[in-house]
Amino acid sequence: MAKETKPRRPKAETPRGFRDYFGAEVTERETMLRAITAVYHRYGFDPLETSGVETLEALGKFLPDVDRPNEGVFAWRDEDESWMALRYDLTAPLARVYAEHQLHLPTPYRRYAVGPVWRNEKPGPGRFRQFYQCDADTVGAASPAADAEICAMLADALEAAGIARGDYVIRINNRKVLNGVMEVVGLLDPADPEAGEAARGVVLRAIDKLDRLGEAGVRALLGEGRKDESGDFTKGAGLGPDQADIVMGFVSAGRETGAETCARLRELVGASAMGLEGVEELEMIAALLAAGGYSDRARIDPSVVRGLGYYTGPVFEAELTFEITDEEGRRRQFGSVAGGGRYDDLVMRFTGQRTPGTGVSIGVDRLLAALREVRRGTAQAEGPVLVTVMEKDRLAEYQAMTAELRAAGLRAEMFLGGGNMAKQLKYADKRGSPVAIIEGSEERARGVVQLKDLALGARLAAEIETNEEWKAQPAQMEAPREGLVEAVKAMIARGA
Amino acid sequence: MAKETKPRRPKAETPRGFRDYFGAEVTERETMLRAITAVYHRYGFDPLETSGVETLEALGKFLPDVDRPNEGVFAWRDEDESWMALRYDLTAPLARVYAEHQLHLPTPYRRYAVGPVWRNEKPGPGRFRQFYQCDADTVGAASPAADAEICAMLADALEAAGIARGDYVIRINNRKVLNGVMEVVGLLDPADPEAGEAARGVVLRAIDKLDRLGEAGVRALLGEGRKDESGDFTKGAGLGPDQADIVMGFVSAGRETGAETCARLRELVGASAMGLEGVEELEMIAALLAAGGYSDRARIDPSVVRGLGYYTGPVFEAELTFEITDEEGRRRQFGSVAGGGRYDDLVMRFTGQRTPGTGVSIGVDRLLAALREVRRGTAQAEGPVLVTVMEKDRLAEYQAMTAELRAAGLRAEMFLGGGNMAKQLKYADKRGSPVAIIEGSEERARGVVQLKDLALGARLAAEIETNEEWKAQPAQMEAPREGLVEAVKAMIARGA
Repeated sequence: MAKETKPRRPKAETPRGFRDYFGAEVTERETMLRAITAVYHRYGFDPLETSGVETLEALGKFLPDVDRPNEGVFAWRDEDESWMALRYDLTAPLARVYAEHQLHLPTPYRRYAVGPVWRNEKPGPGRFRQFYQCDADTVGAASPAADAEICAMLADALEAAGIARGDYVIRINNRKVLNGVMEVVGLLDPADPEAGEAARGVVLRAIDKLDRLGEAGVRALLGEGRKDESGDFTKGAGLGPDQADIVMGFVSAGRETGAETCARLRELVGASAMGLEGVEELEMIAALLAAGGYSDRARIDPSVVRGLGYYTGPVFEAELTFEITDEEGRRRQFGSVAGGGRYDDLVMRFTGQRTPGTGVSIGVDRLLAALREVRRGTAQAEGPVLVTVMEKDRLAEYQAMTAELRAAGLRAEMFLGGGNMAKQLKYADKRGSPVAIIEGSEERARGVVQLKDLALGARLAAEIETNEEWKAQPAQMEAPREGLVEAVKAMIARGA
Repeated sequence: MAKETKPRRPKAETPRGFRDYFGAEVTERETMLRAITAVYHRYGFDPLETSGVETLEALGKFLPDVDRPNEGVFAWRDEDESWMALRYDLTAPLARVYAEHQLHLPTPYRRYAVGPVWRNEKPGPGRFRQFYQCDADTVGAASPAADAEICAMLADALEAAGIARGDYVIRINNRKVLNGVMEVVGLLDPADPEAGEAARGVVLRAIDKLDRLGEAGVRALLGEGRKDESGDFTKGAGLGPDQADIVMGFVSAGRETGAETCARLRELVGASAMGLEGVEELEMIAALLAAGGYSDRARIDPSVVRGLGYYTGPVFEAELTFEITDEEGRRRQFGSVAGGGRYDDLVMRFTGQRTPGTGVSIGVDRLLAALREVRRGTAQAEGPVLVTVMEKDRLAEYQAMTAELRAAGLRAEMFLGGGNMAKQLKYADKRGSPVAIIEGSEERARGVVQLKDLALGARLAAEIETNEEWKAQPAQMEAPREGLVEAVKAMIARGA
């Protein structure tokens, strides 16, 4: 034969920053998302599934005088030289869909969406370039009742996913109220809204650091500035003590009830029209949530700052309040798993018309991690019952056993690989099988089967010290062939 | 204010060749896939979800001396200049995963996968550049029992999705048997397997046209060639009449039972070792399917050619046998909805080692279209019950009604947009709401609500000719406020 130059073999590797999800990792996410979307659906939201690909200009990440797309998205040129890109969230496609199909869609348009999004960022530990989002939005409804509904639905969705009442709180704030406060302290002039933007950013970032820096640190940042432990100096917003008092008063305006908090905010925003509008929105949200029985778990909290920069009205955040042990061994609250708010100008990019919208996005991986904490230690054996193959010419009989188990609703399979009994039991072990079934000619002659309780075996192996005890293998029993299904069910129940 | 140059507005358009899925289009696919994957899971298959992105070399579509990737995939360069691409199917990622994680995975590795795949092809009517696949594969099992299991599972999955027994058939063939026939007619020399490849391709394509060209047409293509209606001449495979007899004998070797078909095939492959191996595999598959009670819906059928080129052993195809009316108004069988087979060298690309694999892929959109045919006329109203808003200052009370309905398991929402009652009912109509609820001050004073049966209203509107009859609006009734949930349920039940 002719001598061949062998082509280089491709490397089998997950691309950098991406990952594969195996077995229970897939099903636990599916189960959670199914529970959440069932709530969304019951609330009257319709599913929407757009494709992973959008035109780059629809995503809005393209700078007009740059030849290649901006960082942050994965993009390429189509045959006709136009740029396409993978979506980086589910909100941008919603804005595109609403602008495109507005005439045929009901108003308000209420949709939920679940799916992967892609970020062209440097991957890091736990930071992936593809991950899931789970959003619900109401587009075309200006009423704060739409925001209140999203908050109530978020609470119901968290409970449906498995977070107990008392283990979470929905915290609600309003961008307009903060703007009103900014107006009062002289950092915002409604007639010239761009002036003072930098100083407002400093205030926003300062408030957001309250947890970490304490009141004195935040006050320093609101005033002249602050030197941190390393000696680095951060320039402040330049507010005087009276102005800083007003800002700090905003952050600590939270009271027992929503009505009381709103009353305090009303004092703080003074005569600011925008501030008063924001307070009135919060009053209505608080009243509707109280009427719906949600005031124990959804509360007005002016210290919520995260995301304020992006939104134009009410903002909300779901926080899990139970404690976990972090990487450094410290106990801390689990923290935020969802956030959202009102964005009144997303669709305007396309249509030129202001379109009110409000929605929430659940951090799928964060919430999954939280559920794993909650369920810790209660994970169930999920592997299939394994029907082993002693005699290769009896496959039809092993197959019949497998079919009987499946017909009874059990997960089961016949061993299809090659190898002796040791290899087959090792396979069962790797699959997390609860039970292995063995039938040789001797068993067949007597009309029985052997059942190995692998779940019990694994527990015993973990507890037993010596090889001798292990060899005693108490986790095996004989059952009549015609009683196979019942015997397997009983053995699984024993182990559960 | 300063004059601004307005930035150009982006176009709101679905990218070319992609589409959006709304409401029921999403849920019907989800429901179907859930039913199918539940079967896969019960059979012992584990879910696997890889990301949409792979390295281009893992997908194997990169030609070494071309700077840009080959057509067919969407690809781009990562920061480090390596090529990445969107997966075009779920099998290539499986091969990559198995090669990468082999040491940690059980053998055999049994996985199912569901998700979108992308094709960089010219879009056409009904041809999209993103679509779903739903696959199940067993990697690392050489036994034909693995193929038989896939066929049985496919039958169970189709039934779980809603295809009735009797409306489908799984047809099974074997590439090796055809190779044996090729050997007998002199088109394949096991010592020099590359010689005669072109002629074998002609034979394969000829057989595949049996339905369309009839026996005479196929015989012409097996021999010197064939001139079609337009006068175009297609060169044939150059077989003599005796050789063509053998090939035609293969295609029509199907008999009443699998055992009989296999006996006939055994005659045809004569002394070909590969042909005999193929027949023995089919015999084992037929025996296991018969033992499992599947012989009425899974049968050995040597006329199945589709995909033979790609696979290395047994191949299978699921065909729906009920009739539909096609675009030209003709009655015809629905046709193929799934296909698969054995591919023993996919993993070898990475590892250099031959790894047996067999699997099936369901055409998600095809099967969905079939289910729509089956269910025609039985679609159910799915829209939410709409609680209309007569008085804006009574939102808490409308919200309470909505919450009551949801707590009773009904899909419901309060109208959140702006507009009068006519606009609200138009919204309900657009949402496919079965019932709208109206409560004004007069109703509240009397402790009642008005219920509009919108499903009935729509049916009446379709039947009634004159405006007068329509205005009579018989589809409205009054119910006591405290009996709201029961009244709504009764109205929905009446319309179902």
